[in-house]
Amino acid sequence: MTKSSLSDVMNASGNVVEMLRNSKIGMYVYPVVAPEFTNWRDEQRAWRDSAVLFDQSHHMDEVIVEGPQAAEFLDHVGINSFANFDLNRAKHFVPVTPAGHVVGDMIIFREREDKFILVGRAPTANWVQFQQAIGKWNVRIHRDPRSPSRPDGKAVYRTHYRFQIQGPDAPKIFEKMNGGPVPDIKFFHVDWINVGSKRVQALRHGMAGAPGLEIWGPYADLEYVRSVILQSARDAGVDLHQVGSRAYSTNTLESGWIPSPLPGIYTGDGMMKEYRDWLGADSYEATGAIGGSFVSDNIEDYYVNPFELGYGFYIGWKSDFIGKQALETMKDGRNRKKVTFEWNAEDVVKVIASAFQPGEDHYKWIDFPQPNYASTSADMVMHDGKMVGMSMFNGYSYNERCMLSLGVVDADVQEGDVLTMIWGEPNGGTGKTSTERHKQAEIRVRVSPTPYAREARENYAESWRTKRVG
Amino acid sequence: MTKSSLSDVMNASGNVVEMLRNSKIGMYVYPVVAPEFTNWRDEQRAWRDSAVLFDQSHHMDEVIVEGPQAAEFLDHVGINSFANFDLNRAKHFVPVTPAGHVVGDMIIFREREDKFILVGRAPTANWVQFQQAIGKWNVRIHRDPRSPSRPDGKAVYRTHYRFQIQGPDAPKIFEKMNGGPVPDIKFFHVDWINVGSKRVQALRHGMAGAPGLEIWGPYADLEYVRSVILQSARDAGVDLHQVGSRAYSTNTLESGWIPSPLPGIYTGDGMMKEYRDWLGADSYEATGAIGGSFVSDNIEDYYVNPFELGYGFYIGWKSDFIGKQALETMKDGRNRKKVTFEWNAEDVVKVIASAFQPGEDHYKWIDFPQPNYASTSADMVMHDGKMVGMSMFNGYSYNERCMLSLGVVDADVQEGDVLTMIWGEPNGGTGKTSTERHKQAEIRVRVSPTPYAREARENYAESWRTKRVG
Repeated sequence: MTKSSLSDVMNASGNVVEMLRNSKIGMYVYPVVAPEFTNWRDEQRAWRDSAVLFDQSHHMDEVIVEGPQAAEFLDHVGINSFANFDLNRAKHFVPVTPAGHVVGDMIIFREREDKFILVGRAPTANWVQFQQAIGKWNVRIHRDPRSPSRPDGKAVYRTHYRFQIQGPDAPKIFEKMNGGPVPDIKFFHVDWINVGSKRVQALRHGMAGAPGLEIWGPYADLEYVRSVILQSARDAGVDLHQVGSRAYSTNTLESGWIPSPLPGIYTGDGMMKEYRDWLGADSYEATGAIGGSFVSDNIEDYYVNPFELGYGFYIGWKSDFIGKQALETMKDGRNRKKVTFEWNAEDVVKVIASAFQPGEDHYKWIDFPQPNYASTSADMVMHDGKMVGMSMFNGYSYNERCMLSLGVVDADVQEGDVLTMIWGEPNGGTGKTSTERHKQAEIRVRVSPTPYAREARENYAESWRTKRVG
Repeated sequence: MTKSSLSDVMNASGNVVEMLRNSKIGMYVYPVVAPEFTNWRDEQRAWRDSAVLFDQSHHMDEVIVEGPQAAEFLDHVGINSFANFDLNRAKHFVPVTPAGHVVGDMIIFREREDKFILVGRAPTANWVQFQQAIGKWNVRIHRDPRSPSRPDGKAVYRTHYRFQIQGPDAPKIFEKMNGGPVPDIKFFHVDWINVGSKRVQALRHGMAGAPGLEIWGPYADLEYVRSVILQSARDAGVDLHQVGSRAYSTNTLESGWIPSPLPGIYTGDGMMKEYRDWLGADSYEATGAIGGSFVSDNIEDYYVNPFELGYGFYIGWKSDFIGKQALETMKDGRNRKKVTFEWNAEDVVKVIASAFQPGEDHYKWIDFPQPNYASTSADMVMHDGKMVGMSMFNGYSYNERCMLSLGVVDADVQEGDVLTMIWGEPNGGTGKTSTERHKQAEIRVRVSPTPYAREARENYAESWRTKRVG
């Protein structure tokens, strides 16, 4: 039978956990951008010490939602309040299923009264498209999927280029780019600045633990805009580092955003079943991978809710949105909380050392700086033989000289607690192509605040990043 | 002053060692090809255990030399004997300077009586072009430089695609590709095979320590040819791994070829001075980098001669070639010899562990699987406080579970000797962008045969790879 939908693929497999854990899709990569411009250690250091340029033109899907009912439609799809959503603002848009499980997240910009741009991973883009397809909203949608993971010498085209300039010295660059002082833009607000001869939109952001701007415009302008940024940095005497694909994804470990929760869409009847029939057999949801030591018979054990990710205060309770009822129930429940796991250095070195013993079985290789080996990571975090947390996104921070991961823990786990993470998959590993055969290791992890980086904790504007757990 | 030649650049710098050690060019990468297809450990394993596909379409320069005097010209430029150079053969082409220093090397194919194709790094290609420019040879040259290191979403074009299929199970794939048994091609001989509907030339090679074929043809055929290879592997039930850019360059550590000797062209008068005037300020020679602990005032200390690399038996003494006189003198001298250095696991782990100590200085990060941080590597190898060797190309072998490097040692060093390599650069490092600041470490290295891999040692056809040192 030809499999044309996620439902088909799931039916053929019979076990969705097993299906996702044995996906053959390979690494989830940050495509097109060079692996390193200088070296990944200095590229990480630069976002703490000087300034970095992130080329975000390729790794995210873009969805443009336009029409008389655009705001009303998106207000219905996401949990966010749209009450204060002016033209000069952006939001962190989070949709949940009717059962209250997080589907994913995107950054949403309001470009006009009736036009929004959403930027992020595929699951939220798919969900937005589906909601438009099954509803009766007067909106139209344009979808620009992310660039191919392996362009292999072929030309790549996008609708927009997208750059972030971050770090303590970034403001000196902005002033040169703009040909004078830039407007004082509040966190997650948008304004216009000059980049050489171009007038571009700029979002005040702070992804890497220090203030910065995200700018975007037509893809054809990419080279010009980059050259102006690089020249402005030279003119300002700033040691700006372009960040390559190896360092890029690790910036979130210091700032605390979990990019990769499993979309909670594999269960549920009614709308959810309809969604799985609608999603293609080649979709992110059908081809994606779960990697890690956590193996459950129940796919819902991999889901998270918005409270667990620290997104509870986004919720616009006054409007009616998908999943509202479920969230009302969850709100007062005993939700897990988001934390950073600081990996024990001695245990990490023990894992690495095992790869230098010819003829012996070894632990799962920790690839630096980014050891994730699936689109969604789920490693068990244990205490007294009981699972009390899930590690969901891993990486090495040269700034902290430490392996870190982001994840969730049970409500009664405290900052400072030392737990045990199981690193690697049982029985030598799964059918995933992104990892070699290995044995499992225990790595002690210390429960730490999110965001972990001192800079991010102390200097961030009001946002979920500053809402401490516990 | 505008610097248009290597001579200009060297004059402006005043110290060529310092200039090359502080190059800002960054990593010497294997471009265009994806970093990993599965994961680099399994990609390495596959060339030992099953089969691999190397996409060599992008990382090498190509020079086509055509004309009535093509053979005579190349016989004059390289040290090789052309006596037995039939149409169905390839050779490992090595030119030296008049002083006998290695310029570089390329693989040379004789496509017609009067047409040769050379494939390899830029220094040899530059030298061949220069020799044609200053001589009166009836030949013409077409040069196709390697693909850009950072294509960044732009289309890349080459004259030829070039694939290698290697590994113990490779022959099963050849038979499927060819639609029947392939001709029995001798090592470094060429014949024609079918790849689906295409008739292509195939070189019998063995780069990764196991028999294989290299095939090439018009770049427009690349996708078709690759798809036939992948389908043939599936049809043959062979676990063929495409090898990504991270694993690729490490294959030479097991087979024993040193890809990156410093071209011995920065010194010498007469023709050599003329060459430096001719070479552009943007050439490999002017922009390249030396990385490593070995710092000498004399650039010639980084040069090697053909005897040291094990290429002495290539020499066609009967013909007259550039550098012949110098080699006649060197021949009976006390030349260094090529070896593999096996790095002490405990010391390697000590170096890695230092990157997990917040607030402390750390040793030079060993990036896996390919820690070279310059186009030419030169690390000191010591015995009793005296330099007795130079480590020239580094990498981790998952097959051997070991860090290895290739290099040269003094004639009296014996296999099995344990020496001390100095890892990292003095004084915190140079101005190179490819490495972070660091302190130096001592790593014990055991002198081992070249090639190191048991497979390569035992199964290789007659070639320098099987000529053991010592």
